[in-house]
Amino acid sequence: MSKALPTRSENYSEWYNELVKRADLAENSAVRGCMVIKPYGYSIWEKMQRALDDMFKETGHQNAYFPLFIPKSYLSKEASHVEGFAKECAVVTHYRLKNDPNGKGVVVDPEAKLEEELIVRPTSETVIWSTYKNWIQSYRDLPLLINQWANVVRWEMRTRLFLRTAEFLWQEGHTAHSTAAEAIAETKQMLEVYATFAEEWMALPVVKGVKTANERFAGAEDTYCIEALMQDGKALQAGTSHFLGQNFATAFDVKFQDKEGKLEYVWGTSWGVSTRLMGALIMAHSDDSGLVLPPKLAPIQVVIVPIYKNEEQLAAITEKVDEIIKQLKKLGISVKYDNNDAFKPGYKFAEYELKGVPVRLAMGARDLENGTVEVARRDTKTKETVPLEGIAGFISELLDNIQESIYNKALAFREENTTTVNTFEEFNQVLDNKGGFILAHWDGTSETEEKIKEETKATIRCVPLNATEESGVCIYSGKPSTKRVVFARAY
Amino acid sequence: MSKALPTRSENYSEWYNELVKRADLAENSAVRGCMVIKPYGYSIWEKMQRALDDMFKETGHQNAYFPLFIPKSYLSKEASHVEGFAKECAVVTHYRLKNDPNGKGVVVDPEAKLEEELIVRPTSETVIWSTYKNWIQSYRDLPLLINQWANVVRWEMRTRLFLRTAEFLWQEGHTAHSTAAEAIAETKQMLEVYATFAEEWMALPVVKGVKTANERFAGAEDTYCIEALMQDGKALQAGTSHFLGQNFATAFDVKFQDKEGKLEYVWGTSWGVSTRLMGALIMAHSDDSGLVLPPKLAPIQVVIVPIYKNEEQLAAITEKVDEIIKQLKKLGISVKYDNNDAFKPGYKFAEYELKGVPVRLAMGARDLENGTVEVARRDTKTKETVPLEGIAGFISELLDNIQESIYNKALAFREENTTTVNTFEEFNQVLDNKGGFILAHWDGTSETEEKIKEETKATIRCVPLNATEESGVCIYSGKPSTKRVVFARAY
Repeated sequence: MSKALPTRSENYSEWYNELVKRADLAENSAVRGCMVIKPYGYSIWEKMQRALDDMFKETGHQNAYFPLFIPKSYLSKEASHVEGFAKECAVVTHYRLKNDPNGKGVVVDPEAKLEEELIVRPTSETVIWSTYKNWIQSYRDLPLLINQWANVVRWEMRTRLFLRTAEFLWQEGHTAHSTAAEAIAETKQMLEVYATFAEEWMALPVVKGVKTANERFAGAEDTYCIEALMQDGKALQAGTSHFLGQNFATAFDVKFQDKEGKLEYVWGTSWGVSTRLMGALIMAHSDDSGLVLPPKLAPIQVVIVPIYKNEEQLAAITEKVDEIIKQLKKLGISVKYDNNDAFKPGYKFAEYELKGVPVRLAMGARDLENGTVEVARRDTKTKETVPLEGIAGFISELLDNIQESIYNKALAFREENTTTVNTFEEFNQVLDNKGGFILAHWDGTSETEEKIKEETKATIRCVPLNATEESGVCIYSGKPSTKRVVFARAY
Repeated sequence: MSKALPTRSENYSEWYNELVKRADLAENSAVRGCMVIKPYGYSIWEKMQRALDDMFKETGHQNAYFPLFIPKSYLSKEASHVEGFAKECAVVTHYRLKNDPNGKGVVVDPEAKLEEELIVRPTSETVIWSTYKNWIQSYRDLPLLINQWANVVRWEMRTRLFLRTAEFLWQEGHTAHSTAAEAIAETKQMLEVYATFAEEWMALPVVKGVKTANERFAGAEDTYCIEALMQDGKALQAGTSHFLGQNFATAFDVKFQDKEGKLEYVWGTSWGVSTRLMGALIMAHSDDSGLVLPPKLAPIQVVIVPIYKNEEQLAAITEKVDEIIKQLKKLGISVKYDNNDAFKPGYKFAEYELKGVPVRLAMGARDLENGTVEVARRDTKTKETVPLEGIAGFISELLDNIQESIYNKALAFREENTTTVNTFEEFNQVLDNKGGFILAHWDGTSETEEKIKEETKATIRCVPLNATEESGVCIYSGKPSTKRVVFARAY
């Protein structure tokens, strides 16, 4: 708490790294690329999990659990899938250690070598579809709507807390259907669930769209995504939902008998969001004083700090505060009373600012006299003195208001930072000077997409679902195009 | 559903294996020793998790998340810990696959060998204490009360669904304290939490006790446990809570400055329960027709089956049923209406018996006329016809009654199968003919304990916390003893 955070304008990247650590969200562990999610960070993740899990269940999904390990041969069964994941996976080759014959601790026992190596799951399509083969015989077994909460490992070379870590936590939905149409509808439904969660819970406006072939999930026919804009003008992919076609069913020979008795391959989807959302949450809303959390995901929604000169004053304040706490809890509002004598109010104010507690109440001797309390909101840093009469209802409305206001701020930011361009020169200029989302025509070829990426480091984030049909020419090739796509530099 | 289950008396072990599969709880995966937890099984586990998690939070604990991988050198730092786990751990040696130069799929890339091998966590003391070193400086940082929900891997040679699997799900609490007394109090508190959970949620009576030195957790000073008795007379350890002394603090150099400014090693505890509890739940209560679930952990508490001859009857029944469902849901009771036309009522009855749904309602034409419904309880298999008037209150009480009654049955079974013996001959006779818990005097030496184990396969489950002091002689050595311990053959 001694040193101030780096500011966003100074060094956005350092600001993020420091904020994650100082707000007690996460830290790097001794294992390269693996993070420790600290209790405060984890409690935000738990709130995300709970909200998402409820939404999954409301849409008819059930949770299950599949093995951490994937036999190497399974990973290889779907050609583009293995191509996508082989280069970054942790491989288990042995199942035992033994005492070092040279007396130096323990060593891998060469006699305990596995016949077939096991891959620590980077995603579970292969192990799940190998299981589905036994679960699906008839159209009566479909749809199969399953989700799993799990850890996965992708051996990334450059890692960053929450945004890109070797191990991360996520959920992965894996569904099986009797028709392509039904699987596509599922894919789109889950995209909507993610968008709703991002906007209503995380206060994060997102663009819904489809990935280009280049950016598609390894093994999918189509990848839908939600894309969010961070405060430094870079995009962040916040969730994906894949239509797998019959690719994994074919690879693992999963067929069903339809109503007419004909055998057909099953249609699949998969969809996931991860602890990466924590990174999005932090980067979208926070400021130079620390975290700004939307109230719906804040572990502590209201903190109350007493301001007192002696024990007697503290006792009188505490009596009032106890009443407030009771009223707030009745409305389901989480509240912490910080009467720790070891720290001064100013220190506490800074600490709760850093941690993004949405509302801070301070009560001093004068408030006691006047029957008031000082209410400060974290997002705007404004303060007002409010009568205690009806305080719980006031706070409850204020929390709703903050949730909405954080969303609106992020939306306004995105709108300001979404630019329509018509030439490659304009494109480059906006990219380098302003950043953000750039709406531009593109000729639909991977070749052009790659060239633009090479020259500018910008990628096509998605073809927005709500893109209007309009004829134009590709900013790079000059070839005809029917709609604009969203370009950006991205995390 | 076609074939009946093996009976318990015929083949208890087969009965268990078949029941786990047929009731859709879990199955073996393609990866040796790793299970797939199916949706129905997982939903029971979720209920267990939620109840335990609430109890952990009520006792002041917070969740966090630590890495899956443990550097080999960390595991070695606590001597008895590595001794306990080295022989059964999955070892990651490489971080990349590459295309087989011979064109046969993918192979491990020999160039991607890790400098130091990583162990897939069998338990997380080492990685957590290496982190605590940075989190703890002063007595003000203590106590640290943290829990983690995670998967762990222990490469067991003989595995059984839920009871012993290579990968399993669990929670592991890891706490740090400034005094031994406080750490011991924490250890005992968590044992009480586990016992309360087992008895009040799982309807499973347990003996609370302390393990002998032989059976202690690798790295602990003392291991407390809860032991339950299964229907075949074998014991099952259902949860453990360890007082770690300063062992891990010493191994990882975790010191704190006390109020006087003196540096001291931190005192630790760890405690865990796992998906093994699923095995205990199944084996303690179920019968030859299938699962018997205590209502508090049943994913579906009430199932309603309509009995009808035509569409018109079904419509009239459904109308009544909808009312019942509304009333039950208002009381927080989970209910499923099975109006699937593809199966006959008899088939459905057997199916829900197999799945252990605590209460089944059946409504036919006569019930409709009389304003009644048939209520069947799973545990006793008794049926009665009950007026619809006040049905929700009736069911709610019935569920409480079933919960209690399952517990009482298990308790009576345990009491019948707990035998006090005074000679080794008696001991052997009871062990071979009756099984169960055997209370006997023991001289307190590991030597005697091991000899008894070798000769009889019975182990000391625990020294019960509530053992009465009485002088006696060891059944094996004839040496003096001050209290009886609990022996049993165990899972």
